[in-house]
Amino acid sequence: MTRLSRTFQTAPAAVPRDNSAKFLDSGLTSEGFQTPDWLVPDIEDGTAPSMKAEAVDNVVDRLPDHAPEFAGEIRPRVEWAYDDAAFRERGTEQVRRLAGDVGEHLDGIVFPKVGRIDDVRAAAGVLADAEREAGLADGALDMAVILETAPARSDLREICRFASESRLAGLVFGPVDYTAELGGRALHGERPRWDGLLEALSNETSAAGVVAFGGPFDQLFHERAGVSYYNAEGYADQVEHEATIGIDGSWSLHPKQTAQANRIHTPGSEELDRDLTKIEAFNDAKREGTGAVVVSGQMVDEATYKNFANTVLTVRAIDDAHPEQTAELYDDDLLERALSVELA
Amino acid sequence: MTRLSRTFQTAPAAVPRDNSAKFLDSGLTSEGFQTPDWLVPDIEDGTAPSMKAEAVDNVVDRLPDHAPEFAGEIRPRVEWAYDDAAFRERGTEQVRRLAGDVGEHLDGIVFPKVGRIDDVRAAAGVLADAEREAGLADGALDMAVILETAPARSDLREICRFASESRLAGLVFGPVDYTAELGGRALHGERPRWDGLLEALSNETSAAGVVAFGGPFDQLFHERAGVSYYNAEGYADQVEHEATIGIDGSWSLHPKQTAQANRIHTPGSEELDRDLTKIEAFNDAKREGTGAVVVSGQMVDEATYKNFANTVLTVRAIDDAHPEQTAELYDDDLLERALSVELA
Amino acid sequence: MTRLSRTFQTAPAAVPRDNSAKFLDSGLTSEGFQTPDWLVPDIEDGTAPSMKAEAVDNVVDRLPDHAPEFAGEIRPRVEWAYDDAAFRERGTEQVRRLAGDVGEHLDGIVFPKVGRIDDVRAAAGVLADAEREAGLADGALDMAVILETAPARSDLREICRFASESRLAGLVFGPVDYTAELGGRALHGERPRWDGLLEALSNETSAAGVVAFGGPFDQLFHERAGVSYYNAEGYADQVEHEATIGIDGSWSLHPKQTAQANRIHTPGSEELDRDLTKIEAFNDAKREGTGAVVVSGQMVDEATYKNFANTVLTVRAIDDAHPEQTAELYDDDLLERALSVELA
Repeated sequence: MTRLSRTFQTAPAAVPRDNSAKFLDSGLTSEGFQTPDWLVPDIEDGTAPSMKAEAVDNVVDRLPDHAPEFAGEIRPRVEWAYDDAAFRERGTEQVRRLAGDVGEHLDGIVFPKVGRIDDVRAAAGVLADAEREAGLADGALDMAVILETAPARSDLREICRFASESRLAGLVFGPVDYTAELGGRALHGERPRWDGLLEALSNETSAAGVVAFGGPFDQLFHERAGVSYYNAEGYADQVEHEATIGIDGSWSLHPKQTAQANRIHTPGSEELDRDLTKIEAFNDAKREGTGAVVVSGQMVDEATYKNFANTVLTVRAIDDAHPEQTAELYDDDLLERALSVELA
Repeated sequence: MTRLSRTFQTAPAAVPRDNSAKFLDSGLTSEGFQTPDWLVPDIEDGTAPSMKAEAVDNVVDRLPDHAPEFAGEIRPRVEWAYDDAAFRERGTEQVRRLAGDVGEHLDGIVFPKVGRIDDVRAAAGVLADAEREAGLADGALDMAVILETAPARSDLREICRFASESRLAGLVFGPVDYTAELGGRALHGERPRWDGLLEALSNETSAAGVVAFGGPFDQLFHERAGVSYYNAEGYADQVEHEATIGIDGSWSLHPKQTAQANRIHTPGSEELDRDLTKIEAFNDAKREGTGAVVVSGQMVDEATYKNFANTVLTVRAIDDAHPEQTAELYDDDLLERALSVELA
Repeated sequence: MTRLSRTFQTAPAAVPRDNSAKFLDSGLTSEGFQTPDWLVPDIEDGTAPSMKAEAVDNVVDRLPDHAPEFAGEIRPRVEWAYDDAAFRERGTEQVRRLAGDVGEHLDGIVFPKVGRIDDVRAAAGVLADAEREAGLADGALDMAVILETAPARSDLREICRFASESRLAGLVFGPVDYTAELGGRALHGERPRWDGLLEALSNETSAAGVVAFGGPFDQLFHERAGVSYYNAEGYADQVEHEATIGIDGSWSLHPKQTAQANRIHTPGSEELDRDLTKIEAFNDAKREGTGAVVVSGQMVDEATYKNFANTVLTVRAIDDAHPEQTAELYDDDLLERALSVELA
């Protein structure tokens, strides 16, 4: 089945508030387009060092109540760093605790700051060990890694090829740490977009059949005349750029961003209608013994067919997980066509 | 001898017209700057599935009459797809038929949608087998591949290194299929230019000593006030960009594009005069026992000499294949200098 | 100790003037911000073929007098070319002569036009042999290579990984030769910036722990209304772009460029104050048993600490080599804080 990966929303798992699980609770109880496809309770950079233990406790405490009703997938981000054993040791303990106590409510684990392929293999080994100790089925927990160090970028191709023989299911860009590691300086407040990296990330994840997410957009709000506005336009620019180059989903830091990115990464009505029309015409042609047909000037054959089928499969996956989203976006006839059309 | 590779013109080998070989005939009988350096009778995406057999028949039928007079090289594009055995089987049959029936009129075969290096090796093997069966000399037919899939981009370096031990002679970018395979969506009608890929393509083909072509430019015409114009400016922008980054030649979909790209990829009068002057001064200096000379502020030595010599070799190759082109572009004195200057 | 690599200034080692060592002398006696971190007496492209021998003589003659007082490091650029044995033979002789006669005054050697990893290994071997013959300690002389050929770009990752087991200490971009080798043509006078290459250069050198320099900026002056001006703005744009993407230092062709690039690649007062404040707060937090602290909205922990510490280490290295530069840039209190703060 097509898996949804439109949004990767991090939620600090413990914050210095009366309810330290405030953001975790908010993510787990989100509704409609605000529900991220991947909810990532953040035990790493989003949580202060003095609150790491409480962060793990919060995840262990909240998941049994909320995970069964949550419509997305859940993958906590633990501590890890290719160049610091103390981080890897704390991360290993966090993975063990999570797998052991709430493993059945998790889809996977996110490892930040991985290095070369050997370090990614080591993280996969830690997860496999924890899974086995917890009595979970082999492969029950998949993993994603944040691409944010020079050695990981250097080994990107090997890391993606590793996915074909392992539980590695996704890569996520981490531009802040990446820029710092390369020694980049934001001289006029602008960080590079790292176009070469994004192109390679889209290519290698596509070749490996795993998902790719873009990096966080942290200018959440901007001010004008003393009033603070949600920066919808800036975020849309980034998300649309990611969609244009084939990055599957976008990082969200806020429910507003989640709702926005979920919509941008969902086929629109026109796009769906256009692709359905082509599939229907191709199905007719095949019944009449022809191997291809031209619809609105574009040839549809076995090869191009796959692209149109992908649109339909995505819509079916969204409908399966979030019927309220498809009900809002498409009229009844269009949705019915998407659900019933025959796919080769 | 320097081989010409300014233009790669695809011509559908069969179209639903009274004369189904209309575009093939047009390409084979083109004259002057409209003659492509590589003419590519297209049996793949340009030809409808129901007309594939007729497309092969057309090539087999037309080449004996026209190929001997045709001033460019001829390489049909057959069907192929790294992820679909049915395409590879059809392509194998097409290669056999072409090599067996008109092999002596062909320079090579173009394979689309190749995957990783193993798939490129497989295509090379199919061509070698067909060549032997047809009784052609070993290596009589070379091959080019279209770079348009994620695994081929991932293995670009290995594919180019394979060229040094094989019949692989060129790579051609295929942006439409490439963008679709990566899942890129043209949200506002714009497809990415894939700058990272183009840079790598120029580098790896240069390192391997094979030729590189850019992708097709499909906005052939634009409309203004109800009138349709040939989009010369848009195509020139793309071709000049390709020339700037060292892509050897450009894809053409139309004789007008061929004429335009042939001119842009040909040294201009000023460029030729400038490089000849440097070579002549260097030759004089060498006769006087000096290893270098400064001309118009630029030092010319054995190393830089090669660049200037390339300009002259290209002009000689054009003059050899298309004397009408050099006659049109250069005055007699300049051309005579290019043909007679001594090259080390 | 942090090594300084803000500037890579080439100085032709012999020019057709009364004093053929004019530019070499000027570099060796430069003062203040005009002192390059790397001074590169150029025996390669900056020196005419007929003056190569005199160029080597000049270096051998001047270094004993000036090198002991010179505040930067000295690495001559010798002849070399992966595709021409004559260049490699001349370069080998030049390395031998330099190591034998003035080896104790050199920090290393710069090899241009290297090819694939095997060619880089060969250059390293030549240097090792010369070092041994000269009776210098093993590793006394390090090496840098100019990245300016297609095969070197193709093997960039392997070349940088070689650094971890060798004397290779830096890579420098050479855009003019690189563009020529790829066959790029400056159709409208503009050369590509080669963004993909620069991104990869920054990444791979960071992963290997070696330094990276950008390419030369040759539009040193521009004219307006008949008057020639130093092109400070154009050079600043290039140097700042390099700093933004993590290229460590910039190529200089002139003392004015050296002074400018040294300043841009030096932490500013505000940057230093900001990072010191974070380190001081983190040190306080650690003394009180906390592992992290939030300063001006940014969390400082062991991981982010490294970035702030780098700023201080760079300032200490500059103060050590160039006390006049730190005295000019920072007020006494700020400098004192930078020199005395405790670094973990």
